[in-house]
Amino acid sequence: MTAHAPVPLTRPTPDALAAVVAGLAERFGTRLSTAEALRAQHASTLTWAPSQPPDAVVFPHTTEEVQTIVRLCAEHRVPVIPFGTGSSLEGHVNAPLGGISVDLSGMNRILAVHTEDLDCVVEAGLTRKALNLSLRDQGLFFPIDPGADASFGGMASTRASGTNAVRYGTMRDAVLGLTAVLPGGEIVRTGSRARKSAAGYDLTRLLVGAEGTLGIITELSLRLSGIPEATAAGHCSFPSVKAACDATILTIQSGLPVARIELLDAVQVRASNAYSKLALPETPLLLVEFHGTEASVREQAERFGEIAAGEGGGAFAWATEAEARTRLWQARHDAYWAALGLRPGARAVATDVCVPISRLADCVAETQRDIVASGLLAPIVGHVGDGNFHAQLLVDPEDTAEVARATGFIDRLVARALAMEGTCTGEHGVGQKKMRFLEAEHGADALAAMRALKRALDPLGIMNPGKMLAA
Amino acid sequence: MTAHAPVPLTRPTPDALAAVVAGLAERFGTRLSTAEALRAQHASTLTWAPSQPPDAVVFPHTTEEVQTIVRLCAEHRVPVIPFGTGSSLEGHVNAPLGGISVDLSGMNRILAVHTEDLDCVVEAGLTRKALNLSLRDQGLFFPIDPGADASFGGMASTRASGTNAVRYGTMRDAVLGLTAVLPGGEIVRTGSRARKSAAGYDLTRLLVGAEGTLGIITELSLRLSGIPEATAAGHCSFPSVKAACDATILTIQSGLPVARIELLDAVQVRASNAYSKLALPETPLLLVEFHGTEASVREQAERFGEIAAGEGGGAFAWATEAEARTRLWQARHDAYWAALGLRPGARAVATDVCVPISRLADCVAETQRDIVASGLLAPIVGHVGDGNFHAQLLVDPEDTAEVARATGFIDRLVARALAMEGTCTGEHGVGQKKMRFLEAEHGADALAAMRALKRALDPLGIMNPGKMLAA
Repeated sequence: MTAHAPVPLTRPTPDALAAVVAGLAERFGTRLSTAEALRAQHASTLTWAPSQPPDAVVFPHTTEEVQTIVRLCAEHRVPVIPFGTGSSLEGHVNAPLGGISVDLSGMNRILAVHTEDLDCVVEAGLTRKALNLSLRDQGLFFPIDPGADASFGGMASTRASGTNAVRYGTMRDAVLGLTAVLPGGEIVRTGSRARKSAAGYDLTRLLVGAEGTLGIITELSLRLSGIPEATAAGHCSFPSVKAACDATILTIQSGLPVARIELLDAVQVRASNAYSKLALPETPLLLVEFHGTEASVREQAERFGEIAAGEGGGAFAWATEAEARTRLWQARHDAYWAALGLRPGARAVATDVCVPISRLADCVAETQRDIVASGLLAPIVGHVGDGNFHAQLLVDPEDTAEVARATGFIDRLVARALAMEGTCTGEHGVGQKKMRFLEAEHGADALAAMRALKRALDPLGIMNPGKMLAA
Repeated sequence: MTAHAPVPLTRPTPDALAAVVAGLAERFGTRLSTAEALRAQHASTLTWAPSQPPDAVVFPHTTEEVQTIVRLCAEHRVPVIPFGTGSSLEGHVNAPLGGISVDLSGMNRILAVHTEDLDCVVEAGLTRKALNLSLRDQGLFFPIDPGADASFGGMASTRASGTNAVRYGTMRDAVLGLTAVLPGGEIVRTGSRARKSAAGYDLTRLLVGAEGTLGIITELSLRLSGIPEATAAGHCSFPSVKAACDATILTIQSGLPVARIELLDAVQVRASNAYSKLALPETPLLLVEFHGTEASVREQAERFGEIAAGEGGGAFAWATEAEARTRLWQARHDAYWAALGLRPGARAVATDVCVPISRLADCVAETQRDIVASGLLAPIVGHVGDGNFHAQLLVDPEDTAEVARATGFIDRLVARALAMEGTCTGEHGVGQKKMRFLEAEHGADALAAMRALKRALDPLGIMNPGKMLAA
């Protein structure tokens, strides 16, 4: 095979697959399963996508067991698909060529918490809520919060973020280092516990966001934050998406260290009113949160109130008490389920883009017009401090014409974001469903460079094939 | 050549070199030079290292001209060494195999400033001070400040940071995207102007910190920050390095959003008193700065004063007026020159490591003992909020015994940092002088993965050879 040969993309032979399954059964016993129901649970399930189950699922408990699995699969050229909690939105865990799903949920230990250094070391199958529950008594928390209670391996692999990213950054920033099993079976430890380093290529950042195509992350060192002394949160209604976005831009520009600033469009507010038993005006809404000392959150909240009023926002109602704050944030986190309630029986197709914040108002407004013109139903929510927003398409997967309209809408949404110097996904990742946009976003030469990196680390093409660079 | 052949490391043949020089002379005219004095200026000059000048220096004005240079060098297998301002500290710009130094100082334009998005696009030869001078009227600044007035291409390539990194991050965080010429001559544009993305491998972060071994950065999109409404700065003397480090740890842990927190050890204070005409107590000193509103910087400064007092620090003298603040920070930025004054005629060998902050006090204290025991003179300054510190060895390069003692000291310093889960360099980079530590830091398998990435993008080994992964 020459250095420029394409990464092979073929199903394993029945013999190869049988050899791997037999080898895994011998080593893992009942932790290896080919049961149909379990395999179906390890295909893409949360949002609507064709279900492509793996041939078998294995549950390792250690990095060395992951190494054993990868080596066996490499020997027989059988695909390996890492699996955390299955909450990915773009088909990342599907197995289009079959192969072995490596379910890391059994690797869910907290290996160390270094309170003095504000970091911890966890196994990749641990979920963010489990970590935060454990950290609470130590006055620390991990701020990155995608909607789902995802695993850290999955969050790192998709470069996840969430509502706190505007202040605390994304998984790109939060991962100090990691342990991974490369496609050849080598165990590497990247990064260190130092908060910065200039020593060599940034393998950590290469594996973060690689969606399991360059290896399986098994452990992570994560930056933590101190639970803020005081938190103020509130909400403010706006006459238009443009007014809400302009208030967001001014907030960011003025240097207010806002911890969260979330947009719900009128359709989403209507859905959340119904689902979460709220009585918010059904116009665009910003949910905002500030972290700091008692004095500083008060100052921040007052300043935001002035900015919002200047953009035509209604009264900014805010509070520092936990009970008053929690209800609205719970509604925000339930936005996905609330949206499903708008059209019972429909399936959700969640998609996201991210643009420079100066273009956000235009991008959201044009997208809303496109939704209406396309005859689609799709509430919009956004981490607008980052310029990132989501459209949650509610579709009937049996209606091929509607599915085609939804696909056309996503094509236009991405084209719109790219024309505004944005990206085809701010936090969901590429998976299967955004592959077709990568060349338009990065250009042919940058995509070729990515493929060269993939070939360099995975010459057999066994790691999560059919995703990201496969199109 | 197979995928696993070593990257070739040989001098170009005289014929190859002559062909490249002739080709460049034809295209670049007087912007190509082989003058000895100019070549010597393009070898490592700032700190002491053997001088290894390139065979010629060329001054491109556009990305396309850089592409022309790289293609010609690739055709003849002649080394290419990117050059910004020559302020690197670890021999990055030396030409151990000869070749062509590509001096980007003529590419120093600001291509765009997007005030609404807090970002800008600049050419790689622009320096940080020139950018900040231009931004000042717009209320914006670029916070990353290595000691030198370095170029952005160089700062990105060495993953530079500086005094503000504790609050604003490093070049890893500040670069939104970049344009680079890859070793094959392809022009790639990585990233976007969106503040986050989950679309594909992180080529931006792969090129940031690659020290010119994977391509030449020609343009960068950079995150900017608003000039804070108020700034408070002050200084506090401590009875010991441990007390100063403990105050730093508590400051970080308590969530105080300190903008700068810098340690000078007693030797450095003595040097700075003499050089900058100060009268500070010659004991360990912290210089601290806070950014925010008038009310918040006052609150932060008062809290820091309480923390410092609790660790045995002296009175915390602080001010918000620019004049009162500037003098001490100027002294901090002049620390390198002040240290040289401790031993006239000596050359400086600057080195840095970074450890988890919980280990900082131990690491600095052990290092001070080692300096004394080794009979060396080496003041210590540190960006201690990051756990990063520098020892500036003052050596007589003619004294081979002293040079050997300095080398042994650096070996032990790095071993100490690695034993504390730190890194062999926090911000200076690897260059020629830290290559020997990479395997100890990353392990053989991770280093092999880095070499595989290098081979994938630079199969001919022409980009800045003899650096980083060459050992």
